[in-house]
Amino acid sequence: MTIEIAPRTGVAFRLNAGQRLRVIDPLGEQVSDMLAFAAGDVAEAISSGRSLDYASKLYLTTGDPLYSNRSNVMLRIVEDTVGRHDFLLTPCSKDTFRIIYGDTHPHRGCFGNLAEALAPYGVTPDQIPTAFNIFMNVTVDPATSALKVEPPLSKAGDHILLEAEMDLVVALTACSALQSNNYAFKPIHYRIEG
Amino acid sequence: MTIEIAPRTGVAFRLNAGQRLRVIDPLGEQVSDMLAFAAGDVAEAISSGRSLDYASKLYLTTGDPLYSNRSNVMLRIVEDTVGRHDFLLTPCSKDTFRIIYGDTHPHRGCFGNLAEALAPYGVTPDQIPTAFNIFMNVTVDPATSALKVEPPLSKAGDHILLEAEMDLVVALTACSALQSNNYAFKPIHYRIEG
Repeated sequence: MTIEIAPRTGVAFRLNAGQRLRVIDPLGEQVSDMLAFAAGDVAEAISSGRSLDYASKLYLTTGDPLYSNRSNVMLRIVEDTVGRHDFLLTPCSKDTFRIIYGDTHPHRGCFGNLAEALAPYGVTPDQIPTAFNIFMNVTVDPATSALKVEPPLSKAGDHILLEAEMDLVVALTACSALQSNNYAFKPIHYRIEG
Repeated sequence: MTIEIAPRTGVAFRLNAGQRLRVIDPLGEQVSDMLAFAAGDVAEAISSGRSLDYASKLYLTTGDPLYSNRSNVMLRIVEDTVGRHDFLLTPCSKDTFRIIYGDTHPHRGCFGNLAEALAPYGVTPDQIPTAFNIFMNVTVDPATSALKVEPPLSKAGDHILLEAEMDLVVALTACSALQSNNYAFKPIHYRIEG
């Protein structure tokens, strides 16, 4: 069963060890911020620093594990038709819209959506780390180190498939930030398999 | 008063708003992992994701703020004679030495040193985020996105000066990882000014 995440919203759900999560970009050029927490103890959370360190590369794809802050493998990428995801930048938030976009009445962003979706699982906003930003296309300028948020490389129907290696609480969004989605808010689809 | 951090150890201390922290590489090519927490509530911690996002660049230097997970400025870099620090990779830990170096009796690394130094302030190991790795020289291969830990660009006597913009608990190490220090464990010096 495919579930739709409406534009600028988010969800959280259980994903048990061995289950697979398919995240689909139904229209193309949309981003989904993903977080994962150990179901048994949400103090164990997905870690960009550990995952990038152990992979020794910036762009994770098929075969790469996503580690927790305790260096356990939480998820592994088993299929990936895009190959460009971000693991550097924080989920967009009212602060993002205030600081980067200069909005005076900022949207709560993916951060607010993730915080609301995760609250029933006992995750506080302060526990939200840098997300694995599926389909988000952040480039690094080799000369200046400037980070640029480019339109996603995903086309309609592209997907990533992740397999859980422990019992997890996973949160997903349909991203709320203009730059991330090439200035069009779109839905995200997902499916739990197995 | 200059304080020496012995090779492969770490310390934590209070740094109040307006005080400055000078971190010096006394011998050259040494790294110091730095963490910061709000003194009044250690659930507020330094955030690589927010700092990189708002700066929109990988290599932070003079003038750049270091943000917390609540998007408050914790510290600002006011002097920097090196200009190359890492904010991507997790502090080295027994897991680093096990996974990356294949050690069978791994050192506890900067992570273990930070955890011990921060315990008296009520910070748990799970709350340790990606550190601001002073003088650590991590390059990104533009073609493959490979991350490479190169010898630091710091020479003997080089320093960075950071000013606290809130009351903080700060932790610092003399890094324990071979790659980070060009395979020589050395001390780090620091001084609290003002």
